[in-house]
Amino acid sequence: MNFIKTPVKGMPEKTPNQMVLREYIIRKIKDTYKTFGFMLIETPLIEHIENLTNKQGGENEQLIFKILKRGEKLNEATNLSDMCDCGLRYDLTVPLARFYANNMENLPVPFKALQIGESFRADRPQKGRYRQFTQCDIDILADETNLAEIELISATVNMLNVLNIKNVKVRINDRAILKAMALSCNFSEDLLDTVFIILDKLDKIGIDKVKQSLLELGLKQQDVDKYCAYFDGNKENENCDEKLATMLKGYIDENVIDNLNEIISSSKHLLQGKCNIVFDPTLVRGMSYYTGPIFEIELEGYNLSVAGGGRYDKMIGNYCSKNVCACGFSIGLERIISVITDNNLISLDSTNATAYLVSKNCSKEQKLSILQKANEQRSNGQIVSVVTKSNNVKFQKETLKKFGYTNFVEDRT
Amino acid sequence: MNFIKTPVKGMPEKTPNQMVLREYIIRKIKDTYKTFGFMLIETPLIEHIENLTNKQGGENEQLIFKILKRGEKLNEATNLSDMCDCGLRYDLTVPLARFYANNMENLPVPFKALQIGESFRADRPQKGRYRQFTQCDIDILADETNLAEIELISATVNMLNVLNIKNVKVRINDRAILKAMALSCNFSEDLLDTVFIILDKLDKIGIDKVKQSLLELGLKQQDVDKYCAYFDGNKENENCDEKLATMLKGYIDENVIDNLNEIISSSKHLLQGKCNIVFDPTLVRGMSYYTGPIFEIELEGYNLSVAGGGRYDKMIGNYCSKNVCACGFSIGLERIISVITDNNLISLDSTNATAYLVSKNCSKEQKLSILQKANEQRSNGQIVSVVTKSNNVKFQKETLKKFGYTNFVEDRT
Repeated sequence: MNFIKTPVKGMPEKTPNQMVLREYIIRKIKDTYKTFGFMLIETPLIEHIENLTNKQGGENEQLIFKILKRGEKLNEATNLSDMCDCGLRYDLTVPLARFYANNMENLPVPFKALQIGESFRADRPQKGRYRQFTQCDIDILADETNLAEIELISATVNMLNVLNIKNVKVRINDRAILKAMALSCNFSEDLLDTVFIILDKLDKIGIDKVKQSLLELGLKQQDVDKYCAYFDGNKENENCDEKLATMLKGYIDENVIDNLNEIISSSKHLLQGKCNIVFDPTLVRGMSYYTGPIFEIELEGYNLSVAGGGRYDKMIGNYCSKNVCACGFSIGLERIISVITDNNLISLDSTNATAYLVSKNCSKEQKLSILQKANEQRSNGQIVSVVTKSNNVKFQKETLKKFGYTNFVEDRT
Repeated sequence: MNFIKTPVKGMPEKTPNQMVLREYIIRKIKDTYKTFGFMLIETPLIEHIENLTNKQGGENEQLIFKILKRGEKLNEATNLSDMCDCGLRYDLTVPLARFYANNMENLPVPFKALQIGESFRADRPQKGRYRQFTQCDIDILADETNLAEIELISATVNMLNVLNIKNVKVRINDRAILKAMALSCNFSEDLLDTVFIILDKLDKIGIDKVKQSLLELGLKQQDVDKYCAYFDGNKENENCDEKLATMLKGYIDENVIDNLNEIISSSKHLLQGKCNIVFDPTLVRGMSYYTGPIFEIELEGYNLSVAGGGRYDKMIGNYCSKNVCACGFSIGLERIISVITDNNLISLDSTNATAYLVSKNCSKEQKLSILQKANEQRSNGQIVSVVTKSNNVKFQKETLKKFGYTNFVEDRT
């Protein structure tokens, strides 16, 4: 028989000491979002193949783990695409949309959802990129006002604060501003997605390479120069100022800019001392389903994005028989846990646990009295383990020490 | 586009109010087992197909959700069995065995593991039987003594107690006693599994039908009569008494009976007033991998088994290069949650949450001051939601009340 003792590639297993910190962090996240009125829900890990391949998820759709049909239905399948009826979810947004459509009549309006659960992507495994990973999403459905954006940002920065994560920077932009900047330079509408993909690389490739890539698309030199001037100098701004607003006039609804600036100024007020908030006209966010404000949280000094999101008013409605606006934040839980671990940001009290090491020839009576004592201590919340003493008791104790055991009691034999 | 708003059949989704109780219960379970020295681990939901189909899991193997290979590897596959390289786990025991083999050098001896996670079975969906469900397992690896059995039973009864579940009855038996009873009646060894499957139905079909089924196997009338006499009258006993021990002499190692009786008497002492503990010679437990004591917890009055387990000394070793004895308990988490819900065993304090209902034409300043006040209350641990006021505010409040909101504050407009 073939037994394989390593996990499937890219699928992490978690050891007891990893789990102690992980559990602590996840409980803190749940408890913090709970105070902001977010309600925990859970959706199945398996989703209808139709829902997963509906062209809303972009390139993630190529990364679906597909599940074979069973029994008769499999025998009836005549080709590959007919052999699968479901797959593992690749994000928490598709399941949320389905859940909301299925339960909306019994949910509050607006509905503030918190999900923490596993997602799967059949990616090529590489360092720091898993094929099974825990995602954490908060979403506010059916609130068309910027209260949604402000609450999402406020709750998430507070959550990071509770986890001792400092140097938090929130970048904010709006898809409508991105679009207006491009249109004001005579870029045609069908090129926008391509232009944004190039702009998204600005950080990595620099403004000259961005210019070159845009020219290669066949765009005119003077238009490209005008476009790149938007991002010249400091790409981080207090807010979307008068000057920019004037330049975009005619290409954008003025309310968009007011709305964005209110999100920025209100968040700044609410989160004084807890984070830095900037308007970043180069922020793109990958997913094409965003329709309004978009935001990303990075940790200064780490050059690491730990959360991202935005408004997506058109997607949930696909599952319902009416429009449902929505705004959400996806939290990079695995990254947050890494940052906390690597920088020792949370030091949990040593558990100060007790281990009774019982020899194999211990009398029944003595064993029972040890167990009784242990149960008393446990009922007071202490961590106590009663285990058989190993032949190599020194090594046994050393290993237990690595798991928080500091007190050892051996029976007399 | 085809969007399906109901979940995949047999895959439950959990609403906010279900999750509040569920979270409470799962945290209590984790916290209680933690005091007994069990350590939380997590293993991937996807497992190598070889590990899932190694004939250890019995009929569960027919219930595997198989996952299609990706890319080139799929194209190279020439037949159905070659198209899948992994599948969803159907229990937590196979992943535990793999995890232990992969990590044993860094784990304490004995190792006390707690797992709470999703398992999948491609069963025909029916009421109360899910195709995705949360399992909860505790296992003690590498302890050959009955300390393992006693700690497992003691911890689990205490856990049920913490969850306000009363009327707990623990049934205990030993596979060696089951075997000795059959051998003492001249049943041949190769018929044992079939005999046990019949005996397992005693509760449902009664002793006469058991006799009839055994006779249909070709067993002799006088042997069948002798066998069934073991289970005559009250099938529940204080312990494995002298009389039975004498009858089994020659078919069983005497230590087995001493061992079992110590588990029973010690558990009784430790759990006085918390449960009823009986020796039940008809207890079979389905899985053929059990090698010693087996046990099951039922709730008297509900006629419902909520946990079951036993010793399985041969299985973990398949993954390691040496023998590793093991003993475990599988907790029926979904059933426990149902019992608690149906009987209102846990009433969580009303959350007494506050909702600020903000009208759409509320001034920026007023909105900000509401948000500031809300954040202050949240930092004191209160649950506060700031949301846009609906057109139908009466309905909005009524819905929020169902989710624990009792205080409503509206801005003046």
